[in-house]
Amino acid sequence: MPRRILLLIFCLSLSFSAFCQQSDATAIKKLYDYIMSKGEAYENLRYLCKQIGPRLSGSDNAEKAVIATAAMLKKAGADTVYLQPCMVPHWVRGAKEAGYIQLTNGKKSTLHLCALGNSIGTDAAGVRGKVIEVNSMEALHRLGRSAVQGKIVFFNIPMNPLHLNTFQAYGESGIGRWDGPAQAAKYGALGAVVRSLASNEDDYPHTGSTSYNDSFPKIPAVAISTKDATLLSVFLQKDKALSIWFKTNCQMLADKPSFNVIGEIRGTEYPDEIITVGGHLDSWDLGEGAHDDGAGCVQSIEVINAFQQMGIRPKRTVRAVMFMNEENGGRGGDAYLAFAQTHHEKHVFALESDEGGFTPRFFSFDVPTTTFNRLTEWKSLLYPYGVYDFVQNGSGSDIEPLKALGTSLAALHPDSQRYFDVHHAASDRFESVSKRELMLGAANIAALIYLVSEHGL
Amino acid sequence: MPRRILLLIFCLSLSFSAFCQQSDATAIKKLYDYIMSKGEAYENLRYLCKQIGPRLSGSDNAEKAVIATAAMLKKAGADTVYLQPCMVPHWVRGAKEAGYIQLTNGKKSTLHLCALGNSIGTDAAGVRGKVIEVNSMEALHRLGRSAVQGKIVFFNIPMNPLHLNTFQAYGESGIGRWDGPAQAAKYGALGAVVRSLASNEDDYPHTGSTSYNDSFPKIPAVAISTKDATLLSVFLQKDKALSIWFKTNCQMLADKPSFNVIGEIRGTEYPDEIITVGGHLDSWDLGEGAHDDGAGCVQSIEVINAFQQMGIRPKRTVRAVMFMNEENGGRGGDAYLAFAQTHHEKHVFALESDEGGFTPRFFSFDVPTTTFNRLTEWKSLLYPYGVYDFVQNGSGSDIEPLKALGTSLAALHPDSQRYFDVHHAASDRFESVSKRELMLGAANIAALIYLVSEHGL
Repeated sequence: MPRRILLLIFCLSLSFSAFCQQSDATAIKKLYDYIMSKGEAYENLRYLCKQIGPRLSGSDNAEKAVIATAAMLKKAGADTVYLQPCMVPHWVRGAKEAGYIQLTNGKKSTLHLCALGNSIGTDAAGVRGKVIEVNSMEALHRLGRSAVQGKIVFFNIPMNPLHLNTFQAYGESGIGRWDGPAQAAKYGALGAVVRSLASNEDDYPHTGSTSYNDSFPKIPAVAISTKDATLLSVFLQKDKALSIWFKTNCQMLADKPSFNVIGEIRGTEYPDEIITVGGHLDSWDLGEGAHDDGAGCVQSIEVINAFQQMGIRPKRTVRAVMFMNEENGGRGGDAYLAFAQTHHEKHVFALESDEGGFTPRFFSFDVPTTTFNRLTEWKSLLYPYGVYDFVQNGSGSDIEPLKALGTSLAALHPDSQRYFDVHHAASDRFESVSKRELMLGAANIAALIYLVSEHGL
Repeated sequence: MPRRILLLIFCLSLSFSAFCQQSDATAIKKLYDYIMSKGEAYENLRYLCKQIGPRLSGSDNAEKAVIATAAMLKKAGADTVYLQPCMVPHWVRGAKEAGYIQLTNGKKSTLHLCALGNSIGTDAAGVRGKVIEVNSMEALHRLGRSAVQGKIVFFNIPMNPLHLNTFQAYGESGIGRWDGPAQAAKYGALGAVVRSLASNEDDYPHTGSTSYNDSFPKIPAVAISTKDATLLSVFLQKDKALSIWFKTNCQMLADKPSFNVIGEIRGTEYPDEIITVGGHLDSWDLGEGAHDDGAGCVQSIEVINAFQQMGIRPKRTVRAVMFMNEENGGRGGDAYLAFAQTHHEKHVFALESDEGGFTPRFFSFDVPTTTFNRLTEWKSLLYPYGVYDFVQNGSGSDIEPLKALGTSLAALHPDSQRYFDVHHAASDRFESVSKRELMLGAANIAALIYLVSEHGL
């Protein structure tokens, strides 16, 4: 090929790319401007939190939330809205828990506590026992049965404040809540008390799933507030023979039918190529599920709403999904994959927002490196709106099953500093969400979904 | 020079630079680790907010804060702590203000309001008048005396939600508060009512300075909450003849003596080269001055504390400064420059933190472009701790006077989404500050101050 033709092609491709970037920038600015000034996400979140409230799988509130978000998706202008059935576990907390520390001098100190999700309740008399404190799972294993038998194990594993990304600290310290009760039971413990997985010191106990091991007995398990955990540890240094009593009233009932809620805008050019944007609709029962994950749900609905309001007809099908049962089973995510497989759906991209409604900082992508490198060209388009980086690896637990289909996965990562102050606690309320921060997340998600819907991956 | 020698020099300089980066990275990590796990800034802020409270210039609380922060600097390990005198304006709010909207049908709607800082009080009967609403200063000038005379001007200039950086919106809408009462007086207005400069909708009025013009009369001026402003505007659309009444009890008293508070660590190699890191100690009187600017003060003290705790002896003199009277006069900043000039101090660098105790995002530098380009080499050292960008231009109002000395200036820019929710309002309380966010700001400031103290500019 003559050099001048090569040059011509080069110039043409350059200016086409510049043109694309320009028209992308214009569309993204339209989406951003609309969402920041007129978006519905904040008011939708208010409704989910204040008119419905906590939405644990199997609860009446979860069903109300299914109906409410289906209505929101219709109002947003999705051309198809439907419910995707799944069976969900049905764990109920029962009456409010109670507990205290009893010192050997007879003094009592009330504990701020809550049963861990999926745990069994105590009998009517509660659990009482001396306490053995461990700061890691290894420490428990070193102590073994002789030290643990007949006692209550206190997992005091604070979140490491040195990790900039608090999810890393959560991942490291989470072992105590997730696997602690099962491992304590292995050595004959009567019960487990877990320091709340919280990045601040306050009086709120933070719940969350624990996972029993079928090889060992199921024992009652509670989380206590970080302040109480610090206090208990101080008490134990002076009074090793102190005891704890607690009573929980929770139980696991039979599975119940529930739904993922789906609303989509059919693609104009590649309608069979599906782009999923989602959050999870279920929440723990103590707060209002505002950051976790009402935020991700209303941001996903906002994508549909903003596309419709701005007259953007996506080339690929854009589907907002409210996943059910992320918190204690992941059945919604599994059902979503099963449905996709049965119906031979082609899932090209899925993005989850499940790290709270805070100011966005970066996106992560679980894609091959060559794809990732191509994607980084879009970074400069998002920079004016707060997302300044793309990183490789990491998506969300509801969309993770789609990996089986080879789907490209992604997640929004907002600033994580305050997330674990409220996560799974009564303090995860609507009032803890900043409207601007929530909307910025929605705007950046909408921008990325727009780019994928226009250009593919 | 032979080519192999050139190459040798090149390699040596490369490895020296790599060595510097490595030892810098180690020092910065030490500072970060210390501040995030053991830093004093959060507890110092608690003291300023809860044991002292609001610290308006000339108030008893401001003097208490001078004594308290001098003690904090001593405890932090500053080798010299001293007070730098300055005279400050002494404005007092007096008894709580009152006001309402009166509709022509006789109904009243109470206003959440506060007098603007530096404004005059009404007489005992208050101010009553019909209302003329304007959405810009240009609109006021277009209306002119015929429309404004004898009325109360309502400056309803909302912050533009489309600016990612909320300080830009504040800068644009601030004209109504700052210059509105003076311009309304020019056309014979009886009083001015300003929509609070807030990025959210709630019931808090936000105060802040207004500036009279000596050519026009001084008229009473208040801020009303954003919710009230929206409501008043709706009322006015249907009932143009409604009136407002309000009464304020504020007055400007005679200037009072006060102080900047200074604590420094003398440099080991270049003790005459001064690096300033500061915030302002005075605050508005309605809240606790937590974000504005208790945060900047305790972060600056933390730099001294962390250096001492980590055994870092800076090459240049590092000086933490609590400036007095940023809010309604800027006298502390002026005094700081005057002292520097009188004593022929050599100020090489000054950094201010006065945008709240939120997660840090970037630093700005008011330096020549060649210096700025050199500085950007440090970006990668801060990236692991949350600061991801350096931008040119912009510092802080207390250090701005140092420009007269040719000092290189800088400012920390934390995430700005929530700042104007609480700025100058009763909601600027200790509880609105996240410990992790505050500490991250301190850690990044300490890192930058360390780099400048080691390498100069």
